Amino acid sequence: MESAIPLHLETPRTRHKRVPDDYQPPYPSFVARYQPAVSRVVMAYFGLQYRGAAPTVATDALAEIATRFATEGGPSHWDRAHYVDQAGHETVVSVAYWDDIVRFDAWFGPAREAWTGTPRAGVGTFIEVLRPMVARHETLFSSVGRPEGIAVLADGMSGEVQEHAYWGGMRDRIPLSQTDAMTPGGAPELIRDGARLRVKAHDNLCLIRSGQDWSDTQASERKLYLNDVEPVLREGMDFLRDDGLGIGCYANRYMRVLATDGGASEKSYGQSWWKSLAALERWAESHPTHVKIFGAAMKYLSTLGPSAKLRLYHEVTVAAVDEQFFEYLNCHPKTGMLAAVDTVSA
Amino acid sequence: MESAIPLHLETPRTRHKRVPDDYQPPYPSFVARYQPAVSRVVMAYFGLQYRGAAPTVATDALAEIATRFATEGGPSHWDRAHYVDQAGHETVVSVAYWDDIVRFDAWFGPAREAWTGTPRAGVGTFIEVLRPMVARHETLFSSVGRPEGIAVLADGMSGEVQEHAYWGGMRDRIPLSQTDAMTPGGAPELIRDGARLRVKAHDNLCLIRSGQDWSDTQASERKLYLNDVEPVLREGMDFLRDDGLGIGCYANRYMRVLATDGGASEKSYGQSWWKSLAALERWAESHPTHVKIFGAAMKYLSTLGPSAKLRLYHEVTVAAVDEQFFEYLNCHPKTGMLAAVDTVSA
Repeated sequence: MESAIPLHLETPRTRHKRVPDDYQPPYPSFVARYQPAVSRVVMAYFGLQYRGAAPTVATDALAEIATRFATEGGPSHWDRAHYVDQAGHETVVSVAYWDDIVRFDAWFGPAREAWTGTPRAGVGTFIEVLRPMVARHETLFSSVGRPEGIAVLADGMSGEVQEHAYWGGMRDRIPLSQTDAMTPGGAPELIRDGARLRVKAHDNLCLIRSGQDWSDTQASERKLYLNDVEPVLREGMDFLRDDGLGIGCYANRYMRVLATDGGASEKSYGQSWWKSLAALERWAESHPTHVKIFGAAMKYLSTLGPSAKLRLYHEVTVAAVDEQFFEYLNCHPKTGMLAAVDTVSA
Repeated sequence: MESAIPLHLETPRTRHKRVPDDYQPPYPSFVARYQPAVSRVVMAYFGLQYRGAAPTVATDALAEIATRFATEGGPSHWDRAHYVDQAGHETVVSVAYWDDIVRFDAWFGPAREAWTGTPRAGVGTFIEVLRPMVARHETLFSSVGRPEGIAVLADGMSGEVQEHAYWGGMRDRIPLSQTDAMTPGGAPELIRDGARLRVKAHDNLCLIRSGQDWSDTQASERKLYLNDVEPVLREGMDFLRDDGLGIGCYANRYMRVLATDGGASEKSYGQSWWKSLAALERWAESHPTHVKIFGAAMKYLSTLGPSAKLRLYHEVTVAAVDEQFFEYLNCHPKTGMLAAVDTVSA
């Protein structure tokens, strides 16, 4: 048993973790371990939106960004996913990961110009980037052997960690929680730069990417996931997408990961922007929509026990204000973090 | 909105509460407010056990203790409840409450001698007492106007309090949590004193009495409670009673409150002894049996909204080792805290 907080990020605590030192989680979970030299990671969401069938300009743009990802300084890992947003727009997001901020910074300028600097007919584009210190970030995996998202860049996986399977584990896995309440500061602002709309959010904005991979499930387990768990998960994701603002969720995307051939894979994830880690905690712990998800997952896992082949993971970041970037070009006014500001009166 | 911690028990914190200062609970709850002069409260469980129909000696004993409660120095409030324990013994517990430790101490000696000092044929008796500083204790009520348990002694009810409706609220309502993790210390020991068996438990032993009152419910609400909530609650209570030891629950009694005529009322409560507040937290937050209870309660309350007539309350104490007393006479070896020690080899 080890702490989710890596040794080199342990600091004298001014804030306690939520469980006693002798706490034993009831089942194993693991976290990504970066090389100690990695001080920051970057997660960059390159989004594309359009209505109806993909216009050529959209497929061209997707090919272009993929090519650009493969150039010098490009991400160490990226993936792509699709969903239809609350306004009925097809949305394809290419998510790219770096663990070297210098490399990212050098690469990003021209990529940004190409993605949100030039309008494309009938297509909106956006970029959402976090570049947190690793102390502002945590991951969790239900099994080892198939890292997803930022964890693909990691040096490897931890052994079984202590800080999970209780409410508050997410916070306790973030190294900064040893000394900081991570209270949000300020309100999101809109910055207009010609046709480009940027959002300056606020300190301690929170991002979660929470994924599931049912590709290894078979027969009865697959049926159980698709019939009993997925619909409840979808209901919760729809709530956050449509009505999340009132509880501090600025935006939620329930994405289906795309295979390399562009078809749907058997992986999905929810990606959401939150006013604070506390707001995310409250939803997860007590909102009826997530209580249902939690109940369905508990029932699933207790039915299957250690034989479950479903893989679950998440990555959570609480970003300082200077670790964020949001830019939208020709997107509808409720796209991503635009939903947090008033684009009409501004 | 006020803090559950009364002003005169606020201390400079070395431990943070689990929610931010601007946290707003989604529905109202209330706590008992004692006079600031009340430094300790006493909750004394006088138990009686027998098999089958109540022998005369049992009904006599119950009448005797009721008479004694009414004498000088007796409790300010008491109630009585019944259940059948895991060994099939009928168990009647008369629970008495004081808010004056001097009065209790003067009253208790002879009462104890009468209750557990003299064997009664075919009947076991026990006394379980906590006498905590008020800083080691909290209550919670879903509505005002009908206090139960220790709260009957209170000066009144608070206004709406902040620290509830999130996991960790129970701990945050206990004033001592401002500075103390309330970690358990030591293991329960058996002390043999002739036929009397005493248990010396350990520091920070935890007691919860958690009750429900469906006497005001009508028609569809009553049906919903009795058909959808109560069976799930019972299942959880049975789990704690039969298999709680492995998760730190020494004993659990799911009691039906008795009306003054001795018949069953429409009130019940679970009363359980725990190794620690943390163990109780873990069960409540993540054990399938309580997740089901929580899910059923959430569904019930969200179906009914503010019109719900079901009344819920609890009282929780984390007792120092010198605030506890457990004594058993002619009880079976798994009665109450005897289940936490080995009565055979001792």
